[in-house]
Amino acid sequence: MKAEIITIGDELLIGQVVDTNSAWMAERLNEAGIELYQITSVHDDREHILKALDEAFSRADIVLTTGGLGPTKDDITKHVMCEYFGTSLVEDASVRAHIHELYKERPEVLNRLTATQWLVPASATILPNRVGSAPIMVFENEVKGERLEVRGEGQNSKFLIAMPGVPHEMKIAMTEQVMPYIRLKVRGERLEAGDIIHRTILLSGIAESTLAIRIEDWENALPDSMHLAYLPKDGTIRLRLSTYGEATAEELQSHIDTLLPLISDYLLATEDISLEALAGRLLKQHAMTIATAESCTGGRLAAALNVQSGSSAYYMGSVVAYDNRIKEQVLGVAHDTLMEYGAVSEQTVREMAEGVRTLMNTDYAIATSGIAGPTGGTKDKPVGTVWIAWATPTGTEARCFHFGVAREREQITMRAVNEALIHLIKSIKTKH
Amino acid sequence: MKAEIITIGDELLIGQVVDTNSAWMAERLNEAGIELYQITSVHDDREHILKALDEAFSRADIVLTTGGLGPTKDDITKHVMCEYFGTSLVEDASVRAHIHELYKERPEVLNRLTATQWLVPASATILPNRVGSAPIMVFENEVKGERLEVRGEGQNSKFLIAMPGVPHEMKIAMTEQVMPYIRLKVRGERLEAGDIIHRTILLSGIAESTLAIRIEDWENALPDSMHLAYLPKDGTIRLRLSTYGEATAEELQSHIDTLLPLISDYLLATEDISLEALAGRLLKQHAMTIATAESCTGGRLAAALNVQSGSSAYYMGSVVAYDNRIKEQVLGVAHDTLMEYGAVSEQTVREMAEGVRTLMNTDYAIATSGIAGPTGGTKDKPVGTVWIAWATPTGTEARCFHFGVAREREQITMRAVNEALIHLIKSIKTKH
Repeated sequence: MKAEIITIGDELLIGQVVDTNSAWMAERLNEAGIELYQITSVHDDREHILKALDEAFSRADIVLTTGGLGPTKDDITKHVMCEYFGTSLVEDASVRAHIHELYKERPEVLNRLTATQWLVPASATILPNRVGSAPIMVFENEVKGERLEVRGEGQNSKFLIAMPGVPHEMKIAMTEQVMPYIRLKVRGERLEAGDIIHRTILLSGIAESTLAIRIEDWENALPDSMHLAYLPKDGTIRLRLSTYGEATAEELQSHIDTLLPLISDYLLATEDISLEALAGRLLKQHAMTIATAESCTGGRLAAALNVQSGSSAYYMGSVVAYDNRIKEQVLGVAHDTLMEYGAVSEQTVREMAEGVRTLMNTDYAIATSGIAGPTGGTKDKPVGTVWIAWATPTGTEARCFHFGVAREREQITMRAVNEALIHLIKSIKTKH
Repeated sequence: MKAEIITIGDELLIGQVVDTNSAWMAERLNEAGIELYQITSVHDDREHILKALDEAFSRADIVLTTGGLGPTKDDITKHVMCEYFGTSLVEDASVRAHIHELYKERPEVLNRLTATQWLVPASATILPNRVGSAPIMVFENEVKGERLEVRGEGQNSKFLIAMPGVPHEMKIAMTEQVMPYIRLKVRGERLEAGDIIHRTILLSGIAESTLAIRIEDWENALPDSMHLAYLPKDGTIRLRLSTYGEATAEELQSHIDTLLPLISDYLLATEDISLEALAGRLLKQHAMTIATAESCTGGRLAAALNVQSGSSAYYMGSVVAYDNRIKEQVLGVAHDTLMEYGAVSEQTVREMAEGVRTLMNTDYAIATSGIAGPTGGTKDKPVGTVWIAWATPTGTEARCFHFGVAREREQITMRAVNEALIHLIKSIKTKH
């Protein structure tokens, strides 16, 4: 049971929009035990869409599309689907009622373009789009007959689901309508939810090739039923061990169990968790609170610490002190410290961390000050130089990082946020 | 002259990593006048990669790949390329020297896996990867002969460039090596850089269908050489008028000129600019400074305001006051205000904005307080309720937004950030 995703829209191919939908959908398919074989992004173009549908159905049983379902002239997906599946548009009373409800407080939106949204392909099954006007359309091979002939043995379940491309509409559609539909359709197939298993280990502080050599014997002893991937990103490495219905969870676990002692000095977590979620969980677990004082990370460390729902249990607040005046007046950094050592220095970042810890009365505090670039670097403090301090109940530590002049501003701030979280995680783990 | 991108990596197809590379590369190709026809994400799998290469070359002249060039066992791209182009790996002295230089301060990384990185396909042209160990490989049809036969008339320039998938390595490779290489190769082709032209208008405050009806006559009068796209996102709509070598910049501009009077009441910008860049530019232009006081946006508004290099000219700092205690003690919100009206209220958000404006001594200040969910909503203040206040030299305004219970936490905070910026932009524009 394989699936493919086709994302439709010129904006994806001129780089105006990053396709974040596919990765999110991929995760949902994966959780349900559906292997995603390929993701394809195509233009809002009739022939291109038709060809992509043909190719996708030649490889996969389930095709999910996003995009091109809006009410304007550039949105042609619905019309192309009608052509592909040999059907035509008819008015749907329940979609019509839903759209009237949706816009009851904005009657000006109930115009004749919006009215085209309740025209749906006659042969499609319509699933409701609770938060938007474009209905979700399911086309099944049984209904259409010839174009989607059944491939493989005993399978009779090829289908396509077309969804809107607006991310929050797609997510609600996937969660509430599409995944339940897919689960129902594929129940009884060989590959059940749970047959695709991934185990992920989160590491930091080691180079990819050094890690690979350290665990080489272990890796070489892995059976063919398991596949190992190295996923380095922003100062961390995720090691992912996967099986596609060929090994059991217990077999996977036993290999993980022999791996862990080899890498314990670099281990952050034995699951696929983000650094911010891990830090948040540890803080919550130990009833500890945190605040941040940020210069170069400019609020991104704060955002990382409150990205989780329920973060108000441990995250109190932050001061983003871009201007030196704010470092002095709000955080209490000494004027002399700034004059003598500069804003990007161990002394300043220590005073920032301790200042915000006192100001917000928290257990932990993290401060950052650095040169994110592209301008502002000097010979002594080139772009990419970042000082980070961690004020804790047992004292303050500070460390200087050099993320490299070649990196972009965004990359440097993300690395700084990650290193701030990594050290926090290690610090809480060590102390408790 | 068409291009395709193939991104290689299992992690893309299980949703562990969002493919941000493609959009960035798409923009660079577009700027150079190269039409990107399709983006395809495939597994780290020999047959899958070979098939994707065949398909891409059947449609395009240039194929760019990212990913699978690391030193570990799961990275097979280099080996598959050798098979596809009928060549084998040889040691490259300059890549070897570069990698030694790269790791001179980390000798432990110069291990035997890293040593595989200076093995390169014999027939490929190697472009340097300044910041990483995986060399950039160019395969040209002239060298390889049979598999990449020349298609179309007079074209003799099909080629493939394989790049690492780590975003910052890819970006530097594209900027410094790949795009100059592509420009050199395609010079003299019909479509020059500059023949693909996009004009983008940024709007807010109008529904997509309402906009489409308002400009319908104008849209219907567009010649076939121009294509209009509606790109709604997080409270804004981008209208993009494009031509692919069929119209001139002047012709495009004359249609834009007739469009503008129809939409002036919703117009934010006549270019493809982000809200944060536009706000930053206006603040800088008028020598105005800004600070923020954030509850539900948790530092994301600060991050938006300092995302630009040089933002220290106008952005002074922020207080993220997650805890009510911080709202009182740091921002000076009256205890009685919080008790009587609650944190998510007009009164509180006004005092937050005025408090941070005084604290940081800025011209403008923005404050946010809301319920980002998924928990914390009440009947009176459901999830998605956000109060925003703008303190300005001429007084303070506040507005309540309802971003909807159906939206996710991240979506609600992004909408709040955007609305905060939109009103700021309008406010500066109106006053100057």
